[in-house]
Amino acid sequence: MTAPDPRLSINQATIKHADLATALRVTAQAGVQAIGLWREPVQEVGLDAAARMLADSGLRFSTHCRGGFFTAPEGPARRASLDDNRVAIEETATLATAGAPGSTAVLVLVAGGLPEGSRDLAGARERVHDAIGELAPDAAAAGVTLSIEPLHPMYASDRCVISTLGQALDVAADFDPAVVGVTVDTFHIWWDPDVLPQIERAGREGRIATYQVCDWQTPLPADVLLGRHYPGDGVIDFGPMTRAVLASGYDRDIEVEIFNEDVWATDPLEAVRRTAAGFGAAVSPHL
Amino acid sequence: MTAPDPRLSINQATIKHADLATALRVTAQAGVQAIGLWREPVQEVGLDAAARMLADSGLRFSTHCRGGFFTAPEGPARRASLDDNRVAIEETATLATAGAPGSTAVLVLVAGGLPEGSRDLAGARERVHDAIGELAPDAAAAGVTLSIEPLHPMYASDRCVISTLGQALDVAADFDPAVVGVTVDTFHIWWDPDVLPQIERAGREGRIATYQVCDWQTPLPADVLLGRHYPGDGVIDFGPMTRAVLASGYDRDIEVEIFNEDVWATDPLEAVRRTAAGFGAAVSPHL
Repeated sequence: MTAPDPRLSINQATIKHADLATALRVTAQAGVQAIGLWREPVQEVGLDAAARMLADSGLRFSTHCRGGFFTAPEGPARRASLDDNRVAIEETATLATAGAPGSTAVLVLVAGGLPEGSRDLAGARERVHDAIGELAPDAAAAGVTLSIEPLHPMYASDRCVISTLGQALDVAADFDPAVVGVTVDTFHIWWDPDVLPQIERAGREGRIATYQVCDWQTPLPADVLLGRHYPGDGVIDFGPMTRAVLASGYDRDIEVEIFNEDVWATDPLEAVRRTAAGFGAAVSPHL
Repeated sequence: MTAPDPRLSINQATIKHADLATALRVTAQAGVQAIGLWREPVQEVGLDAAARMLADSGLRFSTHCRGGFFTAPEGPARRASLDDNRVAIEETATLATAGAPGSTAVLVLVAGGLPEGSRDLAGARERVHDAIGELAPDAAAAGVTLSIEPLHPMYASDRCVISTLGQALDVAADFDPAVVGVTVDTFHIWWDPDVLPQIERAGREGRIATYQVCDWQTPLPADVLLGRHYPGDGVIDFGPMTRAVLASGYDRDIEVEIFNEDVWATDPLEAVRRTAAGFGAAVSPHL
């Protein structure tokens, strides 16, 4: 077996049912050098313990997932969400410091969907912009980059009102690129006729905070959240997007984040190995 | 019960299990003035009989659904698809002549997905453009408008590689607007941050061949093709898009095309009445 690509990072969601200790162990054991973490398993052990475990693993830390959910109108729910994002910013800073050299302090943001009963998409999008404006000073102070992730348009109503890379860049445009960037995730944007120019634009504007790869297949599963696949198992051509990301000067880790019941049912070490194999075959040739 | 909006047209897919005779009968019986037909039920009775039945119904004919499926590489399958589209063009012209005054000769085109085993999205899109170029003279000779329908990006791999209104307009741009237009369907494009400027552009360029409305709800059903709803039953705000379409000078019928197992299981007359009621409440106020 060849060693995993040195730029591969396993996003913890790919092995969702593993706790933090297991996730760190199997990732390192498979020879992968970096990991992206999720808030819930970190909070399960507590931030300080999580930071020590990460440091002990010797892995780089690539992203923290996730903040966001910014579309509620003004009121206690919105304030609670913003406060929770401030906690996520602190977690991100702490974990990035604990990770091996080359770690990055990137908090991935999912915007949130339309509030219950609302049809005001434009208003929801404006509230996302406003929330990022409120959080930017906290992120700047903590040395964290908020990374707006456009999600596939099929999630626009219930999960993320930011649907294209261009739109994410438009939201980010009012802020310092060191503080507000974008997540480039192949699964969400591969279909976009404008995807390559927008990746080039993201690079030019210094906004690519993280690059994530996984594959798209149809038919979609009954729960369309879970239709993500190992790189190479679907229809995405990783060449053009990957080359565009690299051409922008992107030199960070590249995450694989897969939501998929079958992958989750796989032994986590085996799932990490398969992820590394898929990445090696479908993505590495373009690096 | 108020009379249905005079601009409402029932797309036959909304009452999919009704044969042509039933579809025409219940549409007229509900007081709706126009209908969009599908090829299969028309072919079931034969084109001449279908044209006579349509004429007898007194209904206007708004669109014929559907042509397209243009992404196959050169070879017998591609030639067969193009020949079949020529038949569809003739059907459209015949039915538009048979329909009541105000009928329009519009053939809706669904581009087709990636060919089996292909990851070449750009190539598939180019073949769509080329196929329309081949068919445009036939359409022009028959007085038919080919109406490119962008489908929601969740169908990009298996059904339609044209995913946004802007992209459809870019494909159409090389052709006479009387011959190649676009379908503006709220379900497919409501999420697009660029939707209003692109509707304005479509109007300016004289390309809006047909305007279709139905609603979006989540969670999506297991078969994501069937997640379309009566206007008003979902999260789409029909005001801004409808006003933008009208501001372009659009003066044709407005179709409701719903793919939904529950709607299909409803008695067809009742489904038409519910469609008319939803349209009256959610769309008519913006006309």
